[in-house]
Amino acid sequence: MRWINWLFAAMRTYGGGILEMPDLMDTRRAFLAHCQANLAALRREGRYREFAHLEKLSGRFPLYRWHRPDGVREVTVWSSNDYLGMGAHPQVLAAAARAVEEHGAGAGGTRNISGTSPLHVALEAELASLHGKPAALLFGSGYIANQAGIAAVLEALPGFIVFSDAKNHASMIAGMRGAKGAGRVIWRHNDLQDLEAKLAAAPSGAPKLIAFESVYSMDGDIAPIGAICDLAERYGAMTYLDEVHAVGLYGATGGGISERDGVAHRVDLIEGTLAKGFGVFGGYIAGDADMVDYIRSTAGGLIFTTSLPPAVAAAALESVRVLKRLPERRVALAERAAALKSALDAAGLPRLDGPSHIVPVWVGEAELCRQVARRLLEDHAIYATPINYPTVPRGTERLRLCATPFHTDAMIAALVTALQAVLPTAAIRQAAE
Amino acid sequence: MRWINWLFAAMRTYGGGILEMPDLMDTRRAFLAHCQANLAALRREGRYREFAHLEKLSGRFPLYRWHRPDGVREVTVWSSNDYLGMGAHPQVLAAAARAVEEHGAGAGGTRNISGTSPLHVALEAELASLHGKPAALLFGSGYIANQAGIAAVLEALPGFIVFSDAKNHASMIAGMRGAKGAGRVIWRHNDLQDLEAKLAAAPSGAPKLIAFESVYSMDGDIAPIGAICDLAERYGAMTYLDEVHAVGLYGATGGGISERDGVAHRVDLIEGTLAKGFGVFGGYIAGDADMVDYIRSTAGGLIFTTSLPPAVAAAALESVRVLKRLPERRVALAERAAALKSALDAAGLPRLDGPSHIVPVWVGEAELCRQVARRLLEDHAIYATPINYPTVPRGTERLRLCATPFHTDAMIAALVTALQAVLPTAAIRQAAE
Ligand SMILES: Cc1ncc(COP(=O)(O)O)c(C=O)c1O
Ligand SMILES: Cc1ncc(COP(=O)(O)O)c(C=O)c1O
Repeated sequence: MRWINWLFAAMRTYGGGILEMPDLMDTRRAFLAHCQANLAALRREGRYREFAHLEKLSGRFPLYRWHRPDGVREVTVWSSNDYLGMGAHPQVLAAAARAVEEHGAGAGGTRNISGTSPLHVALEAELASLHGKPAALLFGSGYIANQAGIAAVLEALPGFIVFSDAKNHASMIAGMRGAKGAGRVIWRHNDLQDLEAKLAAAPSGAPKLIAFESVYSMDGDIAPIGAICDLAERYGAMTYLDEVHAVGLYGATGGGISERDGVAHRVDLIEGTLAKGFGVFGGYIAGDADMVDYIRSTAGGLIFTTSLPPAVAAAALESVRVLKRLPERRVALAERAAALKSALDAAGLPRLDGPSHIVPVWVGEAELCRQVARRLLEDHAIYATPINYPTVPRGTERLRLCATPFHTDAMIAALVTALQAVLPTAAIRQAAE
Repeated sequence: MRWINWLFAAMRTYGGGILEMPDLMDTRRAFLAHCQANLAALRREGRYREFAHLEKLSGRFPLYRWHRPDGVREVTVWSSNDYLGMGAHPQVLAAAARAVEEHGAGAGGTRNISGTSPLHVALEAELASLHGKPAALLFGSGYIANQAGIAAVLEALPGFIVFSDAKNHASMIAGMRGAKGAGRVIWRHNDLQDLEAKLAAAPSGAPKLIAFESVYSMDGDIAPIGAICDLAERYGAMTYLDEVHAVGLYGATGGGISERDGVAHRVDLIEGTLAKGFGVFGGYIAGDADMVDYIRSTAGGLIFTTSLPPAVAAAALESVRVLKRLPERRVALAERAAALKSALDAAGLPRLDGPSHIVPVWVGEAELCRQVARRLLEDHAIYATPINYPTVPRGTERLRLCATPFHTDAMIAALVTALQAVLPTAAIRQAAE
């Protein structure tokens, strides 16, 4: 019976059934081969991502502990999106610790199935008030808020056309792609003329949504929200604004660029995150009460998932409240960002210019970008993430720096010295051209 | 100039531009009307969801504080998915509190952008080992793990066909719908013959994925995982198993039904949540190292979102570790579920029979279901969520009960008494037929 065993072993090895059905696809093998080929290509192109193991230290932000197989080293992190250091604010930590003790580690249910605590309700009220809107709705993340929120709007009316800024975030694109039947028109980044031309060219009877961001996370530039709202009114469109990189950071009370520019009331739906300026976790949408209630009642990404832990809601609530009355942090952020920009400029280091706190340093090639980041980390104890495709277009690879209120002059000086040492002069010259 | 002001006011009221373009769609107005009509219909059908405000009390689980406008009342919750009460386990709380103090409230970045801490890495290793797989990958939730994970697999090979159990969760369906170009074949729930017929009818050369759950959350029945793997081998398909309602609860170390049945090694990708049996928050996928690495490298729902807070990772890690060596909780859960079922049966109350810890009590009509739940809460201080469409098909509305190890005999007796008082005998008779 030896050969029978061999036959069964072969069938197991080469995929069950192949002996009877010689043309049978062995999916596991084909998928695995695809994975391996794809990973090899990523490595070849210098785009394979190795996540550095970085231990955030609440007392020492922006210093982290970098864990390597051969030991631990303290490094300065220049790529955190905890833009204001709120993730380490004592009141925020106290609120989180208290909620863990009182309410435990998790919510234990979806919003509908015992997962709505008074903390969730209070946080939604606070976020609505932050944006001067009647209502707000929490999601598990800013990603889901965009994906589920945009899809819910676009699927509501037949023939919806979304006008999407060319640099919109992947989560917004996921929402547009996920909306069955909706059309998508991409307008040139922050280009009002192009947006108007495309609005004018669309059927005037079609429902329209203009989807855009305030601060663009990879370039650091800012959208002309008021002018976009003008066009929306002229062409009967609704507006959906992602303020993920602005909430907490801009505006008198941290309501974002729409608050700073006094145009929040003109935007129909404002989306934000609790994970960046507010330093915690989660996302939300704010707007008209019936619109928000409709999204609450229909969006799969809200209905079918466990609600945020009470401690996350408590920490975020505290952070939003504290930041409302802490303009000093916003001032310090702007001052530190300006200091970083002028230090880079004084040293002749290539950066993308922009009015926000995000400071991209140009590299322009994936493998080089990875190597520059690696040398910064290994030789200079500085962490700055190499940003490559698909996050930015190929050929525009960069290091994305964010000064926080906690980055000192000495840290800026050390960064500049390190960048001068590791950025090849070729890259610097090319960027200057 | 009075009439000019009137004209501008009219333009604002009726939508900018309508005077020039009389056929212009006022999207905001149309969307708002859609929202209002839809909400009115939900109310009419008894499907409008009001989230009860329930305050989880870590020391008193499953007792919660129910907040109403006119006061606060202690209620027994029968619809928590914190199935084992791990959300209140002292070691889990201690781990969360310690991590908040040491690492702050949020991760401050995506996994690639400074958001990978040693805690995330350790949790992934622990989850891989839980399922006997080489690798695991964290996501923001079980919902995202399904949505992003399934889409990543299906988009990898051209012509992929996913064979989806008819009762699969909305998050899995979102992943299938989101995968451009993939075909979808739905097989009758837990029906091996139907699955085989559909596999046999598909082109043998097409890549195939069988997507299914172990414990089905709304019916409480369990899939024949081993037999499904037999079919997968015979037809060259890969397998994707959602163990969301089983991890922590079944198997010698909490690895789910696939561990209990000794078939985890035959399933290609196992997906789970940290928010139910483990009592915290977050989701994951476990499987072959290159497959997981590929999903890590390509899935938008992972790349473009802030990673879980360190305190969430720490609490989940502790919960998984504690539960591995706490079979007592699993035994107690099974014993309490059996006690609940026999108490319901002894009282002649209608329930869907099933082998798991999930005990659905039949109602069969949306408005009635809502009213029954309302009366349980208001008259008997018992919270059980009414489950209606779209979570279950219309006409199969139910209360979904879960006994935990912390539901006492007295709580079961009070529940039975209350159900007898509020469930109309009509509904009971109908269900018995
Ligand atoms: C513009 C934009 N929107 C949304 C998100 C997603 O937010 P979250 O991290 O809360 O998922 C991000 C980044 O993560 C982003 O850059
Ligand atoms: C079968 C199933 N899969 C996935 C999920 C989503 O898991 P999570 O709550 O972690 O998003 C749920 C419920 O929430 C579920 O019932």
